Amino acid sequence: MSGKTVLVTGGAGYIGSHTVVELIENGYEVVVVDNLSNSSYDSLSRIEILTKHHVPFYHVDLCDRAGLEPVFQQHKIDSVIHFAGLKAVGESTQIPLEYYHNNILGTLVLLELMKKYDVEKFVFSSSATVYGDATRFPDMIPIPEECPLGPTNPYGNTKLTIEFILNDLFKSQTDLWKFAILRYFNPIGAHPSGLIGEDPLGIPNNLLPYMAQVASGRREKLNVFGNDYDSRDGTPIRDYIHVVDLAKGHIAALKYLDSFETTKKTGICREWNLGSGKGSTVMEVYRAFCKACGEDIPYEVTGRRAGDVLNLTAKPDRAKKELHWQTELNVDIACTDLQKWNTENPFGYQLRGVEAKFATPEHEYDARFITIGAGTKFSATIANMGATLVDVKVDGQSVVIGYDDEAGYRDPEACYLGATVGRYANRIAHGKFHLNNQDYQLTINNGVNANHSSVSTFHTKRFLGPIVKNPKQGLYTAEYILMDKETDGELPGDFEVHVTYTLDVEAKTLDMNYEGYVQGKATPVNMTNHSYFNLNKVNNPSIEGTQIAVVSDDYMDVDSDTIPTGKVAKREIATFASGKTTTLGKTEPEYDYNFFVDAAKPLKETDTRASELALVTRAYHPESKIGLEVYSTEPSYQIYTGDWLTAGFAPREGFAVEPGRYVNAINQEQYKDCVTLNPGQTYGARIQYKFSSKD
Amino acid sequence: MSGKTVLVTGGAGYIGSHTVVELIENGYEVVVVDNLSNSSYDSLSRIEILTKHHVPFYHVDLCDRAGLEPVFQQHKIDSVIHFAGLKAVGESTQIPLEYYHNNILGTLVLLELMKKYDVEKFVFSSSATVYGDATRFPDMIPIPEECPLGPTNPYGNTKLTIEFILNDLFKSQTDLWKFAILRYFNPIGAHPSGLIGEDPLGIPNNLLPYMAQVASGRREKLNVFGNDYDSRDGTPIRDYIHVVDLAKGHIAALKYLDSFETTKKTGICREWNLGSGKGSTVMEVYRAFCKACGEDIPYEVTGRRAGDVLNLTAKPDRAKKELHWQTELNVDIACTDLQKWNTENPFGYQLRGVEAKFATPEHEYDARFITIGAGTKFSATIANMGATLVDVKVDGQSVVIGYDDEAGYRDPEACYLGATVGRYANRIAHGKFHLNNQDYQLTINNGVNANHSSVSTFHTKRFLGPIVKNPKQGLYTAEYILMDKETDGELPGDFEVHVTYTLDVEAKTLDMNYEGYVQGKATPVNMTNHSYFNLNKVNNPSIEGTQIAVVSDDYMDVDSDTIPTGKVAKREIATFASGKTTTLGKTEPEYDYNFFVDAAKPLKETDTRASELALVTRAYHPESKIGLEVYSTEPSYQIYTGDWLTAGFAPREGFAVEPGRYVNAINQEQYKDCVTLNPGQTYGARIQYKFSSKD
Repeated sequence: MSGKTVLVTGGAGYIGSHTVVELIENGYEVVVVDNLSNSSYDSLSRIEILTKHHVPFYHVDLCDRAGLEPVFQQHKIDSVIHFAGLKAVGESTQIPLEYYHNNILGTLVLLELMKKYDVEKFVFSSSATVYGDATRFPDMIPIPEECPLGPTNPYGNTKLTIEFILNDLFKSQTDLWKFAILRYFNPIGAHPSGLIGEDPLGIPNNLLPYMAQVASGRREKLNVFGNDYDSRDGTPIRDYIHVVDLAKGHIAALKYLDSFETTKKTGICREWNLGSGKGSTVMEVYRAFCKACGEDIPYEVTGRRAGDVLNLTAKPDRAKKELHWQTELNVDIACTDLQKWNTENPFGYQLRGVEAKFATPEHEYDARFITIGAGTKFSATIANMGATLVDVKVDGQSVVIGYDDEAGYRDPEACYLGATVGRYANRIAHGKFHLNNQDYQLTINNGVNANHSSVSTFHTKRFLGPIVKNPKQGLYTAEYILMDKETDGELPGDFEVHVTYTLDVEAKTLDMNYEGYVQGKATPVNMTNHSYFNLNKVNNPSIEGTQIAVVSDDYMDVDSDTIPTGKVAKREIATFASGKTTTLGKTEPEYDYNFFVDAAKPLKETDTRASELALVTRAYHPESKIGLEVYSTEPSYQIYTGDWLTAGFAPREGFAVEPGRYVNAINQEQYKDCVTLNPGQTYGARIQYKFSSKD
Repeated sequence: MSGKTVLVTGGAGYIGSHTVVELIENGYEVVVVDNLSNSSYDSLSRIEILTKHHVPFYHVDLCDRAGLEPVFQQHKIDSVIHFAGLKAVGESTQIPLEYYHNNILGTLVLLELMKKYDVEKFVFSSSATVYGDATRFPDMIPIPEECPLGPTNPYGNTKLTIEFILNDLFKSQTDLWKFAILRYFNPIGAHPSGLIGEDPLGIPNNLLPYMAQVASGRREKLNVFGNDYDSRDGTPIRDYIHVVDLAKGHIAALKYLDSFETTKKTGICREWNLGSGKGSTVMEVYRAFCKACGEDIPYEVTGRRAGDVLNLTAKPDRAKKELHWQTELNVDIACTDLQKWNTENPFGYQLRGVEAKFATPEHEYDARFITIGAGTKFSATIANMGATLVDVKVDGQSVVIGYDDEAGYRDPEACYLGATVGRYANRIAHGKFHLNNQDYQLTINNGVNANHSSVSTFHTKRFLGPIVKNPKQGLYTAEYILMDKETDGELPGDFEVHVTYTLDVEAKTLDMNYEGYVQGKATPVNMTNHSYFNLNKVNNPSIEGTQIAVVSDDYMDVDSDTIPTGKVAKREIATFASGKTTTLGKTEPEYDYNFFVDAAKPLKETDTRASELALVTRAYHPESKIGLEVYSTEPSYQIYTGDWLTAGFAPREGFAVEPGRYVNAINQEQYKDCVTLNPGQTYGARIQYKFSSKD
């Protein structure tokens, strides 16, 4: 693992995002800048989950020198891979000035800052378009790098100009600069994970994404631009290359430049074709795609497109010999991967009913609040920080309490509002536990005890992701993960946890799925969601008048230090069996107790998700007529009437129902197993909030 | 005369300035933008005199869109000639990024604004450098426009890229754009007037200006970059073209584009070589230059220069056929013109002892204060507005009163401080006069009379120019002109006046030379300078204690309306003959009288400059020990002790000595001839202020 930092411009885009994945998988740190003019930040938030790695992102246009310079100041950039640029051949013939301005100025500003900050390695995303119609020369198909250049459209001219710039800059300091110019042939396909792929805003300009949109019904039919070319079936021949192969070509180029830095002590500026060496006609690709999607999609042959030429097949020998790189995937695989991407993300990253906003004044991209179900009758807003449930709205009415921004949640007095509590929720007596022959002492933060993991709490940590999906109408998922490293002297082992929210608009259910693993050492785990509900918030900031009932009035008895005695006792609260409800008053009753679902059946397993969801608490407010049912697979649930709420909220502005494992279980022999996660084991739990309303 | 407005970028530079002259001479209005990075505004102020035409100038970098846009808003631009760009081949190999950034972005911003403001005609300053080494192809010398392109240096690449941009932009709207791409060969020489020429800041990169600097002693010897080329004498062959021929090529191109607009109703984008078709070696040009300057200048053969190629001779047939343009001047003439420029301006526009500052907050270039003799023991500051003498410093001490900026002079109450008064100084009785059987009535502005031309006064008009020169050490000249159009119902005829200040540091003399002509109708003319002196200003704001004496105490008698009676009378004032002086007191004596130099010899001629300068007034202040002598060729002089000074000044803060023609002469038969300027006649007058000091 090199650990060197690579700045990727246009890293949110199609080729950029796939290259970011390969870079991370090859041990590089990545910083992405992108103006998002033709891409979506969601590609990067998905990559965070895919790679379990944070990707610092800057929403900057390269032409904005003042905006770009801080990236060089805040990161020790080792090298740059430069994808950012306008890239549609057809469009470039319509608005050439924009193409020249954006592509050339952006590159110049980037190079100027590289010079200023002593960054010397640069991989440039050029294009086979720089060759123009290579068939005008004898013996130039497949096209070698020596083929005379002559783009036939403004897009190609911008790429050629940038090649000129790089060559001239190299010549001005040949001992310094290390430039790899990669001339791409036709990238197609998508990541095999189905998580990232090509997602052109507006009408796609390339063959495959257009076919994909036809297959998914977004477009009526494929336009084949000319079948009167001098090819085997009359359609133009291109060298299609799987985007993952292409992405890997960048790693090969980067390593090649590294070798000049470390061993040859000299600069370089050189071009490499990145192609398969095998040409396919449009119709051949069409048939491969139809095979992959299992149906013949409609197409129509229309006139030739301005700027297109007959044949652009690469001679990829130089890259094979010098970069030790060649394509490994073919058009069939590319079509299969594309179809997976397309099927699982029929609208790419552009999901209706999903909104995002920044949670810091600095507009950090990993400080976001995402709303799923936005604009519908049931929505949830989730923060990256703490994978926190910031808000839930039933028929437009907020039914939980939360803050407007991260600053609220960072208040040291804040009461874990909506937080994903972990890795160990609830109290550990005296902050002590013993695991695998080792004693641990957590920082005391709650009377004589450690609560909610104390200083290791998740609620102020930013989770990676999310992956937001909308697999069918009215159904949304948002997956976050946290790679929680062992903290010195506190919780042992490196813990990885996935928190997936699933929102069903029709059912008005919000599910939370927790799945965790530990590496290195065993760790105590107990996860829950700490939302404070006020079903009548629209009418009254207090929870007074809320009617509740629970599955069982057995609770874990505690001493005066709120340390469990190990005994099961009864607490006065209405149970489902009683057919009654307990009405929460202005100040009473006060609850902060850990109730059993079934005290007679202590849980032993770490993953409860095989169990049925069980209703543990029901709540209703007669004024708002909004009801709540809390289900879970967990053996206990804390009921807390919010009597110590502070930091912007008054006592009893919300009540919490926190399904989870038994309080202080790690220190109680009969309960210890279910909160002890060993390497190789899976931690799992499910919680569901189900709302009802008068409507 | 088309009257169309042409925006010339880089219009202050070498080729730009010569083209501005040709444009004006062809009836175009010109607006110039230039960042002055390698040029001087003085080229344009000189062009104003050369062409008798105002050239609006904007000090703007083309990359600064916000700075450039107002130019398009404030002028109805018909077409653009685009010279602005970095242009040194050798430098471009050292700092290629700067070349690409400046040349390409500047062009893009310009084209973007042209698009926005519906300007469609564009003449681009390209270069033969786009061909690269044309000798690499068979039969491409002389180089036709069809020669394959392939620049060998970054400078050439920027030109080629801009050609790409223009071709692509044209193709995006072929009915709209009209682009002429002019590929220059090697421009040399200078304007035959000797007023403008090549003035590279720093070390010149081109052959001729370098030789010129060697000839003038600024450089030690000429470096001949390689004599091992495959040419008749081993030095590279270039196609040298007189810059005036080149400038005319732009007019031809512009007219060609006009013809597409007016008759063909279609767009065009086409390239033309501008060259002579005749190649000369470096040594041939060297010999021609030596012949022109009459001496063999030293040279040394050094190594080849990066980016140079053997032969770049134009095939200029296309320009001849289509633009009806060809070169008319040869290398010998170019060398002669260059040598004239060089001899008369050995340091180009860069004069030591000359400073300029803006006189308005808007930094308008024609609102300047120029100081000549700056940093010496005698200096004068002159404003374009009114060709006004703003300040005179003797040994660093100011001896006249004036304002800090134009706003002061524009105050309606301001008292013509330092102004060049015209076209008719002093009073015209009742504002009436009769000339060539026509009666004129000026606006009354002074009691019952019209004074100092009333509403037509020069003192708030901006003069064109100046041409500032420093012909020898300690001698400075600054020439201004005003093209004063006939004002409805006021002064008749179009009057052109040249005001030339000459400052001699050693002699401490400041001369004013007035020369005027009228077109259309005869006009009354009487010019003077209206400085208010206070020789003791450093010690006392009042003139009290100043000792004066005059050449004669005869004065023009006036009635109670200050209208001359036509009689000569005596006024109590010390004369030279008396050997005494009159001391000006705090409030007395008050003078505002027009004295005769010699009442017995009334002047008949309109041009007095053939006469010797005569001393008319002597003044001295014993505290400052500064003395003043006022000389002139004029028949009278007004002595005014400033008793009505206002607008920021108190009475008697300065006294004026205004040599000129007799007050109300236009209405007095015996004096009328000398103030009546007929078409074909020359008005002329000289005034000299000579200072002395204790040093």
